[in-house]
Amino acid sequence: MKTIEWKDGKVFLIDQRKLPLKYEIINCSTYQEVAVAIKKMKIRGAPAIGVAAAFGMALAAYSSKASTYGEFIQDMEKAKNCLFLTRPTAINLFWALERMMNLINIKKGVDLFTLKDIILQEAENIAREDIEINKAMGRYGALLIKDGDNILTHCNAGALATVDYGTALGVIRTAFEEGKKLQVYVDETRPVLQGARLTAWELTQEKIPFTLITDNMAGFLMYRKKVDLIIVGADRIARNGDVVNKIGTYSLSVLARENKVPFYVAAPISSIDMSLKSGEEIPIEERNPKEVTHILGKQIAPAGVKVFNPAFDLTPNGYVEAIITEKGIIRKPFEKNIKSVVNTA
Amino acid sequence: MKTIEWKDGKVFLIDQRKLPLKYEIINCSTYQEVAVAIKKMKIRGAPAIGVAAAFGMALAAYSSKASTYGEFIQDMEKAKNCLFLTRPTAINLFWALERMMNLINIKKGVDLFTLKDIILQEAENIAREDIEINKAMGRYGALLIKDGDNILTHCNAGALATVDYGTALGVIRTAFEEGKKLQVYVDETRPVLQGARLTAWELTQEKIPFTLITDNMAGFLMYRKKVDLIIVGADRIARNGDVVNKIGTYSLSVLARENKVPFYVAAPISSIDMSLKSGEEIPIEERNPKEVTHILGKQIAPAGVKVFNPAFDLTPNGYVEAIITEKGIIRKPFEKNIKSVVNTA
Repeated sequence: MKTIEWKDGKVFLIDQRKLPLKYEIINCSTYQEVAVAIKKMKIRGAPAIGVAAAFGMALAAYSSKASTYGEFIQDMEKAKNCLFLTRPTAINLFWALERMMNLINIKKGVDLFTLKDIILQEAENIAREDIEINKAMGRYGALLIKDGDNILTHCNAGALATVDYGTALGVIRTAFEEGKKLQVYVDETRPVLQGARLTAWELTQEKIPFTLITDNMAGFLMYRKKVDLIIVGADRIARNGDVVNKIGTYSLSVLARENKVPFYVAAPISSIDMSLKSGEEIPIEERNPKEVTHILGKQIAPAGVKVFNPAFDLTPNGYVEAIITEKGIIRKPFEKNIKSVVNTA
Repeated sequence: MKTIEWKDGKVFLIDQRKLPLKYEIINCSTYQEVAVAIKKMKIRGAPAIGVAAAFGMALAAYSSKASTYGEFIQDMEKAKNCLFLTRPTAINLFWALERMMNLINIKKGVDLFTLKDIILQEAENIAREDIEINKAMGRYGALLIKDGDNILTHCNAGALATVDYGTALGVIRTAFEEGKKLQVYVDETRPVLQGARLTAWELTQEKIPFTLITDNMAGFLMYRKKVDLIIVGADRIARNGDVVNKIGTYSLSVLARENKVPFYVAAPISSIDMSLKSGEEIPIEERNPKEVTHILGKQIAPAGVKVFNPAFDLTPNGYVEAIITEKGIIRKPFEKNIKSVVNTA
């Protein structure tokens, strides 16, 4: 089973709120259900929510009762707007929705019956390309991993954050498949525990050796020279190489530089937002305080306390050693090199 | 109720594993029960476990069936060794046990009946002095806090980590009692959540405004200029000013320096170990992996995963702006200034 796939007119996905204690497949038969699944983080990870949004558009297309192109595009705009508002930070969501809308505009004139199939095909393309992209990223990124390395990762940038294979974890998988001995340190990643729940689950499945730590242990491991490199994913990258990723990433990057540990970001070109001069322009989602005061439904803090709960943070480009993409490894100066890679992509 | 106190021949303490959901007082009538309470972290915090150990010695004294001083000192050595082995990092434990044993040695010749009362008196002295020390520390430390400051703290260095009033939180309390407007950012402090459970509970009681965050959010808050200073406690300080404190402290100190936020440590002179050249010599306790894989009894990670769970880390003196003690604020060069403060203490 892939993280997300289309089957028999429905979108099937692994419910990531339930892992690792329960492996449960759910399905969505309307785009509204897909929107809820994204909002509630039943599916999460920048590339995966992009694919979910694309499949959501396919559901919207098939359920449309429009008899004219004008009516149809109205229905599709409505679905796009609904999916658009699910989460603000990861750009892949907007990128996928835009790609779907562009296609619909280009295919004006095609009969609606055929157009709906073309829309589904495009969503399937995005899903298939995602896996190819991850594998290409893996091949480039694995060049940075030496036999015997200890690699630290944060959150989940694995198969569960994508359709399959993963971005940061995809790089680790490739190195492991190449026969390199390695050990992964997994940050548990509070508040939603994507590391302890999802990355730990994936690495267990893949039989890749790992050690689980709480987020506040990572710095001390680096200080003790136990970490050779760090690889994380990204939710959005500005054209200057600033990276917005899961909360805690910034801290890791500072600790990495202080301890001379190279800090890598693995992300598809579709995560780069060329319209933004710097990461300061990327909106940072703030989520429900309950994610902090409760853990898996269990209250840990006194009732009613004030909470700050940003889901992401900003890592300035200066802390990033390189960005691993499906088109190669981008090094400094980022502004210039990102531009040239994106333009040839 | 104080965090720990002696009443009717027993040691009463607040069960800190149960807070904030339950406020429960337990009592120990043997030194072995005190040892278990320390080991299981029903009582924790460097100064508090020192006091617990001293009261444990008083329980051992009263329960001794010895009829000669020779037999008595054997019983007391046995109790000391049991209490000594409960936790390895905080020096206050060893300091308190040594102070009790020294007294017993000095009072050789006093009849056993009287000696037992002298031993209890000394334990009571340690407990009473702890509060006075915290208040003195508070008065010095409050000089570092300006009206309107946002103060970040980690773990719990409050009334619950001491007999009353607290070290790092004692400083914050003093500033608040002086009428300074302030706001505290509380790190939840995984794995045992002393911040979310204990510091949040104390600040709620004291009506001091605070915001709860997960540990990995602290760096981003500093980057966004939301933190004016950091104050933490200490489990042991070497004579060169290296600080061992709750895991995550090192990371905070690095992030603080990177963002030009002053990083202060508040601790009594009894937390300074003059026998150690540097913090590298301080043993770092590693605790049960279940603290990481489970939260308040609830499993969060796949079963059987490998875990690294150091309870403390080492902050090199270079990251510490100053050490707040009951004898004044110690600044750099630490080696020289610590020596002169300790010698006049």
